[in-house]
Amino acid sequence: MKQLILVRHGESEWNKLNLFTGWTNVDLSENGINEAKEAGRALLEAGYRPEICFTSYLKRAIKTLNNILDVMDLDWLPVSKTWRLNEKSYGQLQGSNKVEMAKKYGDDMVQKWRRSFDMQPPAFAMDDPKSPRQDPRYAEMTDEQIPLTESLKDCINRLMPYYKDVILKAFENHDQVMVVAHGNSLRGIVKELRGMTNEEIIKFNIPTAIPYVFEFDDKMNLLDHKFIGDPDVVAAKMQSVANQGKAK
Amino acid sequence: MKQLILVRHGESEWNKLNLFTGWTNVDLSENGINEAKEAGRALLEAGYRPEICFTSYLKRAIKTLNNILDVMDLDWLPVSKTWRLNEKSYGQLQGSNKVEMAKKYGDDMVQKWRRSFDMQPPAFAMDDPKSPRQDPRYAEMTDEQIPLTESLKDCINRLMPYYKDVILKAFENHDQVMVVAHGNSLRGIVKELRGMTNEEIIKFNIPTAIPYVFEFDDKMNLLDHKFIGDPDVVAAKMQSVANQGKAK
Repeated sequence: MKQLILVRHGESEWNKLNLFTGWTNVDLSENGINEAKEAGRALLEAGYRPEICFTSYLKRAIKTLNNILDVMDLDWLPVSKTWRLNEKSYGQLQGSNKVEMAKKYGDDMVQKWRRSFDMQPPAFAMDDPKSPRQDPRYAEMTDEQIPLTESLKDCINRLMPYYKDVILKAFENHDQVMVVAHGNSLRGIVKELRGMTNEEIIKFNIPTAIPYVFEFDDKMNLLDHKFIGDPDVVAAKMQSVANQGKAK
Repeated sequence: MKQLILVRHGESEWNKLNLFTGWTNVDLSENGINEAKEAGRALLEAGYRPEICFTSYLKRAIKTLNNILDVMDLDWLPVSKTWRLNEKSYGQLQGSNKVEMAKKYGDDMVQKWRRSFDMQPPAFAMDDPKSPRQDPRYAEMTDEQIPLTESLKDCINRLMPYYKDVILKAFENHDQVMVVAHGNSLRGIVKELRGMTNEEIIKFNIPTAIPYVFEFDDKMNLLDHKFIGDPDVVAAKMQSVANQGKAK
């Protein structure tokens, strides 16, 4: 059997403040570090043992992964990092409070920015100091690849080549592969694996730091998928994410 | 100009207890974490910006690297891990107190085990539960590669292929390369770079968590080498390592 373990990063400093984050490189909160360690313990207790890991260029995902690996005594595993697993870019909304934006533009508009499949939030200018083009970590990207804003569709489109050519290829040599990333980049993978429609995936909220395991036979036919954690905690976390952008 | 930044891991729980560690996978102490962060700050202040990193399979080196990268806001850098950068194996001495061994066998014997170029401490049996052969993280290694004990010479010999074929090759695409490893694996690199004799390298004590930078011209001719840190701290740390195996 082959297993793909997906983990959304733990709470970040900006999740706590309810700000749009996107490509902003915000750190984990103390709670987020504890969530990551708890994810490691849950995987350990359930007997998982990943062999290779993938994560984004953003420290909240990298540090979630580092904490999981440390709890599992697997610090030494190979880890590949890629901008293609980064969160969806929220363009100019990055740094704005979700509730304040809802008060200003209405719940509907904010829900569209957060949850429409193909609507893009207002874009950065390429030379905006907050644009990824101005960040040396993205020097390898062409101007066409730099996201000045992204819809969920855009985010999934730039993720898919890496998912298919690198992550799935890792199963040729490994049985357990772990990906630690973000709400929307992981949505891309879940949509693909579960054959969800655009409507279905935008309503599907991935809980923070709860391992989500997809099981396959040796020909990579999907057999099952399940969260590794207390079902009540999983349900509460999914609801909490869904509520973030509401004015009240 | 090309720069190779070498960093020995910060204090581990067993350094603190003065135990032989070798391939035992001991964690950093609180002090060790702070030393790592200080190394990151020193590199940042001196204007360094590594582009690719190498470390061992041992968590005290990996976590030193993670802390350095985090302080430098470079968590996203590519990191390769290899058993070839692991500390010298101390075989059956691993877990024994250095001072107690000195009282039992004499300062001279312990200094030979620690500092002779080609004397090996007593070896593990291949099936000893503490032998690396019994640790799944080393499953990729052949029986011939598994070190049941190592002299400094053995440690350098298994490191060199990786140093030459992978670490030096990284300079073809990068100007700054960082290696975070261990007292004896780093001795191998320093000996090679400085053309030191066997006698010279065994007397050379690399201070913990003080970045040691080698500078080269574009054809990789060595121009200079220097520690990045307060000279008094560097001298005190070098002496402290030298004193570890003495009975009084």
